[in-house]
Amino acid sequence: SFPAPAIAQTMPEIKWRLASSFPKSLDTIYGAAEVMAKYVSEATDGKFQIRVFAGGELVPALQVLDAVQAGTVEMGHSVSYYYVGKDPTFAFAAAVPFGLNARQQNAWMYEGGGMPLLREFFDGYNVVNMPCGNTGVQMGGWFRKEVKTVADMQGLKFRIGGLAGRVISKLGVVPQQIAGGDIYPSLEKGTIDAAEWVGPYDDEKLGFSKVAPFYYYPGWWEGGPNVDAFINKQQFESLPKHYQTILQMACDHANIAMQARYDVVNTQAMKRLIGSGTQIRPFSKEIMEASYKAAHELYDELAATNPKWKKIYEQWKPFRDDQVSWFRVAEFNYDAFMGAMFARK
Amino acid sequence: SFPAPAIAQTMPEIKWRLASSFPKSLDTIYGAAEVMAKYVSEATDGKFQIRVFAGGELVPALQVLDAVQAGTVEMGHSVSYYYVGKDPTFAFAAAVPFGLNARQQNAWMYEGGGMPLLREFFDGYNVVNMPCGNTGVQMGGWFRKEVKTVADMQGLKFRIGGLAGRVISKLGVVPQQIAGGDIYPSLEKGTIDAAEWVGPYDDEKLGFSKVAPFYYYPGWWEGGPNVDAFINKQQFESLPKHYQTILQMACDHANIAMQARYDVVNTQAMKRLIGSGTQIRPFSKEIMEASYKAAHELYDELAATNPKWKKIYEQWKPFRDDQVSWFRVAEFNYDAFMGAMFARK
Repeated sequence: SFPAPAIAQTMPEIKWRLASSFPKSLDTIYGAAEVMAKYVSEATDGKFQIRVFAGGELVPALQVLDAVQAGTVEMGHSVSYYYVGKDPTFAFAAAVPFGLNARQQNAWMYEGGGMPLLREFFDGYNVVNMPCGNTGVQMGGWFRKEVKTVADMQGLKFRIGGLAGRVISKLGVVPQQIAGGDIYPSLEKGTIDAAEWVGPYDDEKLGFSKVAPFYYYPGWWEGGPNVDAFINKQQFESLPKHYQTILQMACDHANIAMQARYDVVNTQAMKRLIGSGTQIRPFSKEIMEASYKAAHELYDELAATNPKWKKIYEQWKPFRDDQVSWFRVAEFNYDAFMGAMFARK
Repeated sequence: SFPAPAIAQTMPEIKWRLASSFPKSLDTIYGAAEVMAKYVSEATDGKFQIRVFAGGELVPALQVLDAVQAGTVEMGHSVSYYYVGKDPTFAFAAAVPFGLNARQQNAWMYEGGGMPLLREFFDGYNVVNMPCGNTGVQMGGWFRKEVKTVADMQGLKFRIGGLAGRVISKLGVVPQQIAGGDIYPSLEKGTIDAAEWVGPYDDEKLGFSKVAPFYYYPGWWEGGPNVDAFINKQQFESLPKHYQTILQMACDHANIAMQARYDVVNTQAMKRLIGSGTQIRPFSKEIMEASYKAAHELYDELAATNPKWKKIYEQWKPFRDDQVSWFRVAEFNYDAFMGAMFARK
């Protein structure tokens, strides 16, 4: 055979398709994939093009992992915990209830041993994963009535999914799976009592405050959820090494920039929501503590039956505890003081 | 003239020198520049090489900005607040006392209007700046004796620099400028009463706990200090566009990865320090509030006399206040709960 000319070897032209799990209306999350693709293109002088398709355009929103695994698309942009039905271990790449906050998630992924463990797990699905966005702590959702005790949660029909649904069902809540567009009418009719979505910026657009005025915090099931890039393993390995590096750096940029974007837009949306009558409420200590206990019971049950969960959980849990022990010193004290000075105004 | 061959246009070979302000012994900060350079090299198939020189190897550690401005080196890795003697406005690119935490600093730089304002300011120094690392909230430093009131701070000789020194002198503290290697003997002899350095991981190596057992938090003068990449403007503009993008993405990666690294290593170092007898103490509410008041008095004084400070401060301060108002809801509540559950163990 003839060797390809030097220029083709160095900067080959590559076109990929990316299946997103998100609609374009979630512009901050969906947009993170477009930001990533733009950086990949710019860094390769336009030679490596990734075209982003919204959820449902190429494959159903919640089948992005399957499509990447099968090679139907070269890559996807999704949230790993959408796939806990296949294996609860997927949650670690995104968020586990009472898990890491956004900065701690980065610490674990980039420097704390998380990435090698997850790469090994995803290898079983023919996928190379990397962090590609974060929302920060999400809100706890919209409630038609106030909830103060665990007794108030009994029989509550709450639109919440994944591991969080399994945890909260231990408190007597009845988790509901409802697509984004169906939440508002369900809340309005009272078919459901409460619903969690994302945070002020995205929630505001769906108008929940009109039908469920109590907006709870924090979303303890999502302390710092990563959005994930999934790349078909053969496609990733076929890239020149420097394209692999560029793809990873572009995902790192999207990771930091999506969080930055949310921190800017959520701040403004929260002010508007409060200004228009939304009542914000913290979950009570009783509800938080019962949920914390239920979550860890579930994790122990999973560790007893699922070796993949056990392997990651046993590394992750002491890491989380160490991070919390450190953050509660300087970081927490600083934020607490700044918050107190603001409240005094 | 003859056009250069296509390959040379696409992937020219470029060799730069980077002057760091840091010694190799500060492996996490110094290392962020090496991480950045490694990614630039890998993303360009080895064509764009940046060689990193430790502080003092090419230019004195605190003259990195000057060397980049003059074109003595193509780029530098430093902390912008080292240059507040030229103009206090430099502090915004790194940290202002009672300013943004690390995530809020990213929000401001990437999505909150900070970068365009700073690029305009740095343009006056012939420099293109970009974030390239963060430590998170630093510790408040090592004290030979406990300090509980503002009266206890009177006449205290405290190794602390920059704007923080100007703030704390309003409380009667006598700020001292002492190089890193001279801090230990100064504390041992009692030439100084207290010293701040970085955080547990870096401080542990200098052995301060033996001569000043009280380790205070938080370092309110550095809520989330960015380490900065400085690039000579003509050199930056002479790069092909895709090399500019690669350089920026590599700095973004170093920004997120340096923070991740510190969050991992500080956690372990803090455990060792406490285990070996270091006594950690929060600054009292009285000292924190007096410092907060003094800081904002200084900022108003600067705004009255320095139009460059004024321009950025007037955009930055409401941004900070909005960020604090948002973080005190879900983020703070989540961290508070996780900290409380840890403390109960």
